Amino acid sequence: MSKENWWQRPDLGYRNGRLYFAEEDLESLGRSMGTPAFVYSLPRTLDKLEDLHDALDAAQVPHTVFYALKANRHPGLLNTLRSSNLCGVDACSPNELRLARQSGFQEREITYTGTSVGNADLDLLARMPGVQLNGDSLSSLKRLGDRAPGRSLGLRVNPQLSASHMAHISYAGETATKFGIYLDQLSDAIAIAEQYRLKIETLHFHAASGYLNDELPLLAALLARADAFLQRLPQVKNLDIGGGLGVPLRAGDDPLDLNAWAQLLADFVVPRGLHLQLEPGDYLVKDAGLLLVEVNTVEEKGGTLFVGVDAGFNLSNLHAYYQYPYIVAPLLESETPRRQVTIAGNINEGIDTLAEGIELPLPREGDLLAIMNLGGYSASSASNHCMRGDYQEILVAGNR
Amino acid sequence: MSKENWWQRPDLGYRNGRLYFAEEDLESLGRSMGTPAFVYSLPRTLDKLEDLHDALDAAQVPHTVFYALKANRHPGLLNTLRSSNLCGVDACSPNELRLARQSGFQEREITYTGTSVGNADLDLLARMPGVQLNGDSLSSLKRLGDRAPGRSLGLRVNPQLSASHMAHISYAGETATKFGIYLDQLSDAIAIAEQYRLKIETLHFHAASGYLNDELPLLAALLARADAFLQRLPQVKNLDIGGGLGVPLRAGDDPLDLNAWAQLLADFVVPRGLHLQLEPGDYLVKDAGLLLVEVNTVEEKGGTLFVGVDAGFNLSNLHAYYQYPYIVAPLLESETPRRQVTIAGNINEGIDTLAEGIELPLPREGDLLAIMNLGGYSASSASNHCMRGDYQEILVAGNR
Repeated sequence: MSKENWWQRPDLGYRNGRLYFAEEDLESLGRSMGTPAFVYSLPRTLDKLEDLHDALDAAQVPHTVFYALKANRHPGLLNTLRSSNLCGVDACSPNELRLARQSGFQEREITYTGTSVGNADLDLLARMPGVQLNGDSLSSLKRLGDRAPGRSLGLRVNPQLSASHMAHISYAGETATKFGIYLDQLSDAIAIAEQYRLKIETLHFHAASGYLNDELPLLAALLARADAFLQRLPQVKNLDIGGGLGVPLRAGDDPLDLNAWAQLLADFVVPRGLHLQLEPGDYLVKDAGLLLVEVNTVEEKGGTLFVGVDAGFNLSNLHAYYQYPYIVAPLLESETPRRQVTIAGNINEGIDTLAEGIELPLPREGDLLAIMNLGGYSASSASNHCMRGDYQEILVAGNR
Repeated sequence: MSKENWWQRPDLGYRNGRLYFAEEDLESLGRSMGTPAFVYSLPRTLDKLEDLHDALDAAQVPHTVFYALKANRHPGLLNTLRSSNLCGVDACSPNELRLARQSGFQEREITYTGTSVGNADLDLLARMPGVQLNGDSLSSLKRLGDRAPGRSLGLRVNPQLSASHMAHISYAGETATKFGIYLDQLSDAIAIAEQYRLKIETLHFHAASGYLNDELPLLAALLARADAFLQRLPQVKNLDIGGGLGVPLRAGDDPLDLNAWAQLLADFVVPRGLHLQLEPGDYLVKDAGLLLVEVNTVEEKGGTLFVGVDAGFNLSNLHAYYQYPYIVAPLLESETPRRQVTIAGNINEGIDTLAEGIELPLPREGDLLAIMNLGGYSASSASNHCMRGDYQEILVAGNR
């Protein structure tokens, strides 16, 4: 079976028929701790963070990383990142700002990239002068100027192009989105900045969500579009390209070539003397987390073989809503013939399936399964729908 | 302006230019209490519940109503329903079962209609012998039989037809869904019941979501399909048709004609001597609730006029994910020209818009708006995504 599992990695795969993740025997972990349980590998996140730094260092790109904590705000994860000194934090709401400070990050280690930013947000930001606000609208620039004239800040701009892997998850593109300042608004933004003596030191845009190697040419095109903004903002020191780096989701997806990615960025920022800022969230945590679930029902209905489990789309909605493919694997290898199955959650909504038509050795009721790539945008946006919102989060430290 | 508002009702509309809901001046309420705030009208829910009873009584249908609490589990609402003696409760998880009992409902006043039902659910159900379990799978029947041989129960069946207003929200239909026992499984279900001496006293199916008058012929077709099950289950006393009754969502939608609906049901259940059970959730609370939000940003971007507000799709995801239309209205009538606007939430995801291209007197920053029909499946399935999950819930009692 092992050969068929394209997703296996040194820290994730079968040993003697048992699935290990970050040195943890998942069957033992799930049986002792119970389900549903998210398992997060701290080494995986730290390794990926170091890989980002290494690739950018090799390409001689001066840079700073701000972890977008909306992806996963587990306190132990934030503590680990804080202790690593490898990144700051990107926040997008007052409570996230507070959490970042509560977790030990200093103001200068925090960026704030929000949308529909209200006065309550700006009042708090005015009391945190060291935080880098990436202004998302003319309206918020004015209202910030009223509260904090003379402040340094970033402009979040909308290059009207997206390198998104999935059209549904779009921050910018042909259809107008709510994000950022458009090129035809730039003169007004500059005028507002002058009026309030705001110093625009950073240009920010969010490239996309989940981009891989095939999307790198789009990233290059995005940078070219950003240049139109930069030429009118000669004082800008930092280029912040947001997050959006992807991880393999399907068989055949290659991991993002970080060296090619870093070289592409180097070619743009180094000649311009810019400092690069990154706000990766999902990239650092997505494939560093999985969800352990227990099979409670195996039954064919209407020609479909349903495998019911003790978790639902309220714990991770990316598949139900965005058709993100989830990877499902048994914790114990099995000689049972593989069957096409649909993984059904325990929420009373028809779209609450976690995977459809996937091939799996037919589980038995009581078996445990792992649903992979759920380290980001799962627990952090989980709900208590149907009061099925109880779960554990387990940090594992591996050998690192 | 008032004439243009198709959604106005005696308990919801403008008086002297101010929007009133259940005798509350919403502008005053929102200014004093702050936003975002859900406002729930208890009289509206009670009126609708009484209307259901009245229509069924007039059609001489013996019946019992079980409120599906997953739609809205506010403690004050549950207390009001408990005190009304007009309904029991339908639960779909162990925590909902406990909440129903905690709220004063007795076991015999509770139905349990879950899916992917695990042994933890069944262990609790075995300790609550008076609760009516509607068994959703052969697997759960067997496992219940092991724990509670001789028990009375219902069979949740899948008639493989849906009267859904929206194809996306489907409980049964041409594509196999995870819900219920299919007709080709019925012999096995009967055999399991015999093996464990389980008494099948109720036949349950969930018709659809949001059906209105146009869908009534589909409800009739569903009843005809249910008959195929009933003919093989002569001992069944109760027919439980779940919930799914709809409310008007768009201009031109007529309210469900409850007399026509009740007559349709009477024609089926009365000659068969069946007792009707209903599990309405959304129908009782959806148009009894709205969300007050504050406008923080008004700005044209890329040709779209965005109105940013202090709430996002994490508080109510039905529009973002299901394209449910939300009705948006200012709290103060205005002579400002109407413009086409998009209501943008404060979550950093591109799909976080609450309405697109709707006509509204152009709001100013600081204005309050009402987003209607959010009494169900909003707060009960809200998340803390981006840590923007804070909201209030305000019960209003009107003159009732």
